Amino acid sequence: MNAVTGFGRPQFVTSVSRVESYIAAHDFAHPTLVIDVDAVERQFRALSAGLVRRDGRHAHIHYAVKANPHTAIIERLVALGSGFDAASRGEIELVLGQGADVDHVSFGNTIKKASDIRWAHAVGITLFAADAEEELEKLAENAPGARVYIRVIVDNPEADWPLSRKFGCASDKVMQLLDRARDLGLVPHGLSFHVGSQTREARMWTGTLDQVAAIWARAQDEGFDLQLLNIGGGFPAFYGEEIQAPTSYARSVIALIEDRFTDVPQIMAEPGRGMVAEAGAIAAEVVLVSKKSNDDLHRWVYLDIGRFSGLAETEGEAIRYQFVTPRDGDDTGPCVVAGPSCDSADVMYEKRPLQLPLSLKAGDKIVIRNCGAYTTTYSSVGFNGFPPLDSVVI
Amino acid sequence: MNAVTGFGRPQFVTSVSRVESYIAAHDFAHPTLVIDVDAVERQFRALSAGLVRRDGRHAHIHYAVKANPHTAIIERLVALGSGFDAASRGEIELVLGQGADVDHVSFGNTIKKASDIRWAHAVGITLFAADAEEELEKLAENAPGARVYIRVIVDNPEADWPLSRKFGCASDKVMQLLDRARDLGLVPHGLSFHVGSQTREARMWTGTLDQVAAIWARAQDEGFDLQLLNIGGGFPAFYGEEIQAPTSYARSVIALIEDRFTDVPQIMAEPGRGMVAEAGAIAAEVVLVSKKSNDDLHRWVYLDIGRFSGLAETEGEAIRYQFVTPRDGDDTGPCVVAGPSCDSADVMYEKRPLQLPLSLKAGDKIVIRNCGAYTTTYSSVGFNGFPPLDSVVI
Repeated sequence: MNAVTGFGRPQFVTSVSRVESYIAAHDFAHPTLVIDVDAVERQFRALSAGLVRRDGRHAHIHYAVKANPHTAIIERLVALGSGFDAASRGEIELVLGQGADVDHVSFGNTIKKASDIRWAHAVGITLFAADAEEELEKLAENAPGARVYIRVIVDNPEADWPLSRKFGCASDKVMQLLDRARDLGLVPHGLSFHVGSQTREARMWTGTLDQVAAIWARAQDEGFDLQLLNIGGGFPAFYGEEIQAPTSYARSVIALIEDRFTDVPQIMAEPGRGMVAEAGAIAAEVVLVSKKSNDDLHRWVYLDIGRFSGLAETEGEAIRYQFVTPRDGDDTGPCVVAGPSCDSADVMYEKRPLQLPLSLKAGDKIVIRNCGAYTTTYSSVGFNGFPPLDSVVI
Repeated sequence: MNAVTGFGRPQFVTSVSRVESYIAAHDFAHPTLVIDVDAVERQFRALSAGLVRRDGRHAHIHYAVKANPHTAIIERLVALGSGFDAASRGEIELVLGQGADVDHVSFGNTIKKASDIRWAHAVGITLFAADAEEELEKLAENAPGARVYIRVIVDNPEADWPLSRKFGCASDKVMQLLDRARDLGLVPHGLSFHVGSQTREARMWTGTLDQVAAIWARAQDEGFDLQLLNIGGGFPAFYGEEIQAPTSYARSVIALIEDRFTDVPQIMAEPGRGMVAEAGAIAAEVVLVSKKSNDDLHRWVYLDIGRFSGLAETEGEAIRYQFVTPRDGDDTGPCVVAGPSCDSADVMYEKRPLQLPLSLKAGDKIVIRNCGAYTTTYSSVGFNGFPPLDSVVI
């Protein structure tokens, strides 16, 4: 870490090299994500070191399981004392199966089937998210007495991938829902929000935190004794644009919170991408390089992995992965990059083509860096007859 | 079928009802595609009845396996004498395993690994697609003597889902590739194109066929004795907008071809969506209905299925599925429709909300019609801990 600014990525050179060394030393029949679980541990420790308040209390990490539910990652995080944010019954079963303490597991999806709430309540889950009356009613009926945090909608214009309005409710609804929760016999426990995926620097949290602090203060004024501020995810990974190093980032976010919230008993953070993305790289292969016509200025590079087999986050060209090829250093030119399926939507980078070596050709093995998050489980079961993305833990 | 215009869908009422009756009579723990394989057979027969030339010869159907590779569908189509268009080694293994004749299987993906070409050649596949020099070189090395058809890029402004430039090459390249194929010892066997998915009426093929006919004529002039015109897919399914009935549609397309091509020994068609989409419906459930703020004019309806669990073709709101709810007939209002995952991109209809009953609520069982194509295998392996889309054949 750069001691002066807190920026730069040198702390990850070792782990990336370990994954890339493994890839270089092995052959893969199909695209494969190689994960260094020690790198996950280093990142957990780096984030934890920054998630400390002025009085020494820690913000609790609930790893967002959806980012990568590989059992080796869950097992390691259980050993490190992490909590878990689960999106489904399936994820709760997974983390409990790996030994997670049920008190450290939250059911963070605001969209839950009644039967899944009932099941979660029966196994001992006591903390749930909600953003709507009907969800509170399902919770009251199927998990009576549960603690509930209300997810609020915030504007997040600074994130690389601002979220839609799919989750959360506007501030006028928040007070109604806290009221309704209490009326239904639930515990109105706190608020949650999401600053937006891939928020690269802590300072970008400022506007969002201002909005949430105003809602928090109003709830306190209205007599709700809120206990939990769940700050969600947004912790970034390196995809080519500079990001703040994890400890510095986490420390800055906590400082921004403490400047704005006077009395927050517990803070929870849910890093997903920011915990695992940099711990993995994908081994892939070039299948075809072509030009569509003789006067085209760019080439098409087709890989054996695409949007339907692991790289779904290239949708809208949102996440720009870093490619390592055996011909790096040769002259480069603009390339449209696409997947191997017979689907015309399976194109990853076209509006902003990648610069790749002109010498690249079919059969070349490539590495796609920092693919540890949101790859394996986004992969389709067998679209076009291709197997799902494989994974290996080293 | 409407005897006067050839339009309308009454011939499918029976099969849809059979699927919907089955759904009504069963409970499903997870979203499930129910497929009526007899409806696939009826569609195969309806298309075949139209794919007849003036001299009585038939255009050969190569079912696009990627649309739905369920073994029951493949088995039925094998029994009916269909050929198969395969996108991968996996699909070739599948159809050969179900008894398809290797002479009726084409490897239609223009993006193939050398090892997969070698394998396909070894099992007896002799017909391959290509659109680039490097692909021809891989074919020459790994499938010497193979028959190759060159895919051309055409403009298709009339399709509901126009294809990108991912597949095919411009006309200036076509002659070069036919030449190159011959030089490499391959057989320059024909041309292929794709008019665009979901081309609802045969008349929309006119402009595309004009373009391809000009390329075909030039190739004949330059001495290539082309044997095969592969007209690809584009055969529509009913998603709410009127489409031409299958026999009438196929007959019209053949007539348009014969008006433009003087000497085509063989015509091949690759319906996928047009073969299976209407033969299946998905049983799903409403998980939550909410408003984001008190003054919102629309509601959010969250289902237990979304873009990552089977309804990937709602991307860009391209395919507009038809929903049947137990409250149809009640007053309706505009609804944003989203999936159950903790992913903000998992929203299906927002720019053009659906009109759904205002009385709709969590737990309501719904049916999504005409989902037989491009659903099960697009489904993710386990995103957010949700299982992939299930399927049942009746």
